[in-house]
Amino acid sequence: MDPLVNELLPFLLRRENVARYEDGVVVIGDRRAYPFERAFVRCPDVESVARAIETMVTQGGGPSIAAWYAMALAAREAEAMPREARLAHLRAAEARLVATRPTNTALARRLEGAMGVLQQAHESGAPLVETVLAWVEARRDQQYADYAATARYGASMMEDGDGILTMCFAETAFLLSLGFAAHEGKRLHVFTPETRPYLQGARLTAPSVHELGIPVQIIGDAMPAHVLSQGKVQKYFTAADLITLDGHVVNKVGTFQNAIAAAYHRVPFFAFCWGLDPNRPDRASIVIEERDPAEMRSCRGTPTTIAEIDAYYPAFDITPPHLVAGIITRAGIFSPYDLRAHIHQV
Amino acid sequence: MDPLVNELLPFLLRRENVARYEDGVVVIGDRRAYPFERAFVRCPDVESVARAIETMVTQGGGPSIAAWYAMALAAREAEAMPREARLAHLRAAEARLVATRPTNTALARRLEGAMGVLQQAHESGAPLVETVLAWVEARRDQQYADYAATARYGASMMEDGDGILTMCFAETAFLLSLGFAAHEGKRLHVFTPETRPYLQGARLTAPSVHELGIPVQIIGDAMPAHVLSQGKVQKYFTAADLITLDGHVVNKVGTFQNAIAAAYHRVPFFAFCWGLDPNRPDRASIVIEERDPAEMRSCRGTPTTIAEIDAYYPAFDITPPHLVAGIITRAGIFSPYDLRAHIHQV
Repeated sequence: MDPLVNELLPFLLRRENVARYEDGVVVIGDRRAYPFERAFVRCPDVESVARAIETMVTQGGGPSIAAWYAMALAAREAEAMPREARLAHLRAAEARLVATRPTNTALARRLEGAMGVLQQAHESGAPLVETVLAWVEARRDQQYADYAATARYGASMMEDGDGILTMCFAETAFLLSLGFAAHEGKRLHVFTPETRPYLQGARLTAPSVHELGIPVQIIGDAMPAHVLSQGKVQKYFTAADLITLDGHVVNKVGTFQNAIAAAYHRVPFFAFCWGLDPNRPDRASIVIEERDPAEMRSCRGTPTTIAEIDAYYPAFDITPPHLVAGIITRAGIFSPYDLRAHIHQV
Repeated sequence: MDPLVNELLPFLLRRENVARYEDGVVVIGDRRAYPFERAFVRCPDVESVARAIETMVTQGGGPSIAAWYAMALAAREAEAMPREARLAHLRAAEARLVATRPTNTALARRLEGAMGVLQQAHESGAPLVETVLAWVEARRDQQYADYAATARYGASMMEDGDGILTMCFAETAFLLSLGFAAHEGKRLHVFTPETRPYLQGARLTAPSVHELGIPVQIIGDAMPAHVLSQGKVQKYFTAADLITLDGHVVNKVGTFQNAIAAAYHRVPFFAFCWGLDPNRPDRASIVIEERDPAEMRSCRGTPTTIAEIDAYYPAFDITPPHLVAGIITRAGIFSPYDLRAHIHQV
């Protein structure tokens, strides 16, 4: 890993703090406890990793890392089974992990990769756990190289004096972009909507940006348009759980609302892209995860209303390409309308 | 009062539950405790009423009612003073109460009315407390008649099957509009953003709409655009803390952001108007209250991040007239561009 990358990454995003494998246990950085506590959840089996993902112990880029290591747990169990039962055991683990997140298809695609490696090892008689762990670490090396390349492009879109709006927790590519830009001497100011109900903006983004020494202010999710109207924001950046081949950006609910407000104020919106899924060509192919309405009736365990009141909690929204100024990838910044041309590079 | 109005009003908005005067004490319905508790705050002097307003015991239409009754407390104290000290005492009370809310100028204008009545009573030797209380009750009778007239116009904009978006707590005119429309047999569905940080949407609007028997769902403040994109919303209604003579609507922060999203989805936005202030001609004349950033770092007393992280909390925003389909008043529904023509009717 690039030493500057290592130096710039805030606590939450350091490689070992996202998730790691420790002798039969997957250790996951607990993003629910952060920033109040720097805690980890220890998962001894696939089911507990799956539940950790479902209950938001980790989110964003974290679930696929945790799920990769969960496949090493499944491999360990498989190695103790008769040879003919092993593949079915691994496939059941993969299916359980894929089911944790219907919107972001990265998890499914990344698990396919791990499953491919395990199947090959099974056929060739190679040790399952060692093989999959070596593959995961090599993939992570590549990820951090990709993050750094992406973030160099991200930083190139940030100018000295810029006010930057974001949403939710745009993770490593965004934090590294800020870090690179600040390292080049650009003065930035970040506005982060708190991102209800899980407060990723208030709990994860704001402390991480603060750790980089960049001024950051939490605002309410209802406030971006007002802050834009005050002329305090020059660029809007978010991550993307999914980008369709025709340029629709799927991300944490609120991303679309902010993109409309940004376009109204002539502020460009850039989305960071972790890759493209050939099976998600367009808007119609997107599955929006609707979470338990009860999650909208509380805030860190404190009720926000009485239980008999109904709520609605779609977790993601869809920003159409005409509201997107650019898709930032490891291979460059592309028009949302031109992604098919770059599908093998990004 | 119209008996249907009385029957339709939910607990929070019943006349005696907003605020009342009880033998030297102003009793204010505690909107911070609702809906968890049906509590009241008892204020024995002007300073405690002022603090109750500042600390959000009441909000929306409540502060001016509480402030009117606080003038009766000041009058009671004045009656115990030498005649030459009385007017200054009343004026000091008025100034203290006006200072509680810089954005909504209704409070100042309504206190001017009470002060005028007290000054007249002082000059003519009429009893101060009795005179101001009789004036307040007569003004409140008129207010409920105005609410009913306004709400008849509001209900006329609601059609059978409509999904209705609102923001914060649009109070009596909105709730009565829903009540009248439902009473006419129109089936409605209300979406209420929770309205952070004080959760007026989750705590006040949702339970009040639910009390009327109308289906209501709480959504996050980041979700209106997504719900609009699903075709679930046909009309957007809010109150207004202030409407300038050139049609700018000042209301709880988020109102503007939702209005942009509504316009993007071709959904009309209507604002309820309690009157016009001739001293607020345009955008430049608006003072936006910025509240303590610490309020953005907690939710009902639970911290949402760590104390060293900065926050920003503008309490209101401004929606320009081109995003407003109509201003609903007691005298009819007017174009936001044509308000000067109606200044004496509304």
